[in-house]
Amino acid sequence: MTHNHLRSLLFRQLFENVSSTYTYVLACTASKEAIIIDPVLETVDRDSKLINELGVKLLYALNTHVHADHVTGTGELKKHFPLMKTVLANKANAKSDLQVQHGEKIDFGRKSLEVRATPGHTNGCLTYVLHEDRMAFTGDALLIRGCGRTDFQQGNARTLYRSVHQQILSLPPDYSLFPAHDYSGLTCTSVEEERNFNPRLTKTEDEFIDLMKNLNLPYPKHMEYSVPANMVCGIYDLMDEKTRKTVEQSLEEHN
Amino acid sequence: MTHNHLRSLLFRQLFENVSSTYTYVLACTASKEAIIIDPVLETVDRDSKLINELGVKLLYALNTHVHADHVTGTGELKKHFPLMKTVLANKANAKSDLQVQHGEKIDFGRKSLEVRATPGHTNGCLTYVLHEDRMAFTGDALLIRGCGRTDFQQGNARTLYRSVHQQILSLPPDYSLFPAHDYSGLTCTSVEEERNFNPRLTKTEDEFIDLMKNLNLPYPKHMEYSVPANMVCGIYDLMDEKTRKTVEQSLEEHN
Repeated sequence: MTHNHLRSLLFRQLFENVSSTYTYVLACTASKEAIIIDPVLETVDRDSKLINELGVKLLYALNTHVHADHVTGTGELKKHFPLMKTVLANKANAKSDLQVQHGEKIDFGRKSLEVRATPGHTNGCLTYVLHEDRMAFTGDALLIRGCGRTDFQQGNARTLYRSVHQQILSLPPDYSLFPAHDYSGLTCTSVEEERNFNPRLTKTEDEFIDLMKNLNLPYPKHMEYSVPANMVCGIYDLMDEKTRKTVEQSLEEHN
Repeated sequence: MTHNHLRSLLFRQLFENVSSTYTYVLACTASKEAIIIDPVLETVDRDSKLINELGVKLLYALNTHVHADHVTGTGELKKHFPLMKTVLANKANAKSDLQVQHGEKIDFGRKSLEVRATPGHTNGCLTYVLHEDRMAFTGDALLIRGCGRTDFQQGNARTLYRSVHQQILSLPPDYSLFPAHDYSGLTCTSVEEERNFNPRLTKTEDEFIDLMKNLNLPYPKHMEYSVPANMVCGIYDLMDEKTRKTVEQSLEEHN
């Protein structure tokens, strides 16, 4: 977040307070090429304004996965930045401009994100790692002192446990981790902290599976239209009519 | 926020969602000595837990000023960290363990914050600058695309305008700026951005004064007990009985 010009990364963390979602803007300060991770429909105007003020060129809008608790802003962002490409995992079986898989790189200017498959919350969950800046964007796979739920959308606790341990907590201890959500005002964590203090992921695999089985969480309120909307990256023209109307109405109520 | 170990700064931004306040924890990773800026009463347990998990030693709890919209957490933090010292500006005319003034340094390990007087929102407003990490903590003097109000607590728009221009926007353009509040989910900004896009501070001094005169904002809801509580850094034993009881009751309702 500091030394932006020297380190040539421009970084902004943004918060959407209804779904408690973090959106991230990253840009290479040398080339001004930029990406956005997990934008939210309701905050697209804020994010577009910021992107324009920062004077960066938005190449990609990445979703870490098909969210169930809010509608992605990637569709609406395309209206502001028509050349921008939406990105999802190929394993999401969804519609996006680009479908990426484990091991691929996503380049913006001199920067390069490594794509890591971290399924378990959903099949298509991705973690994006920016090695040279020692940071990773974990979506809902790993939250600060928590993790995404595993009780719907192909959720599988054993898969999630292995993803987090093999792909995220195996990174160097000082790597900063940025989740898709936080509900208590924390903004980031580190590999070391989560290895030591994550109350779920420090358990054994079997204990973790047991714990996840018994969370008894209510279903997300807007899941019935968020999921189909996000399966097409929030592009109105690709939604079925009922979904589109519900999304439009929900946005209207918010504004 | 990244390169923590190499750059030897551990940095955490924390958000309190009732008063939309940002709290900051900074530590020198070499010595583990740490400070906290603008803690909030309601989130002291969260912050104490994090400080303990990070394994750092809290030297100082700094308030950028005597807040009017929430009760500082510095008093409650002293119960968790008895050796920690509270800090306010000498110009605040308040009770704190340390009273600092323009030009002083606050050291923690190998790190050193420069104290800059930035009055205008209140007489005792301070901005803390961490030059080697190219970041500054501006309190309510400068907010992201905004600034603190100037209609109570010794507020003076002309003074604020000069403070911000002479002490904050005169820093190098790439310095990151971290405010005490944000109400739209933005987490930080830069000197360059605010020089170009702050809708208030890019005006002339006279236009700014005019604008600030006509904001017609409602008074902060909890001002009548927040200000006297914060004038003693939130230390219960130093509050008058009515203030202490109101603060205790408000905290109880929150929990």
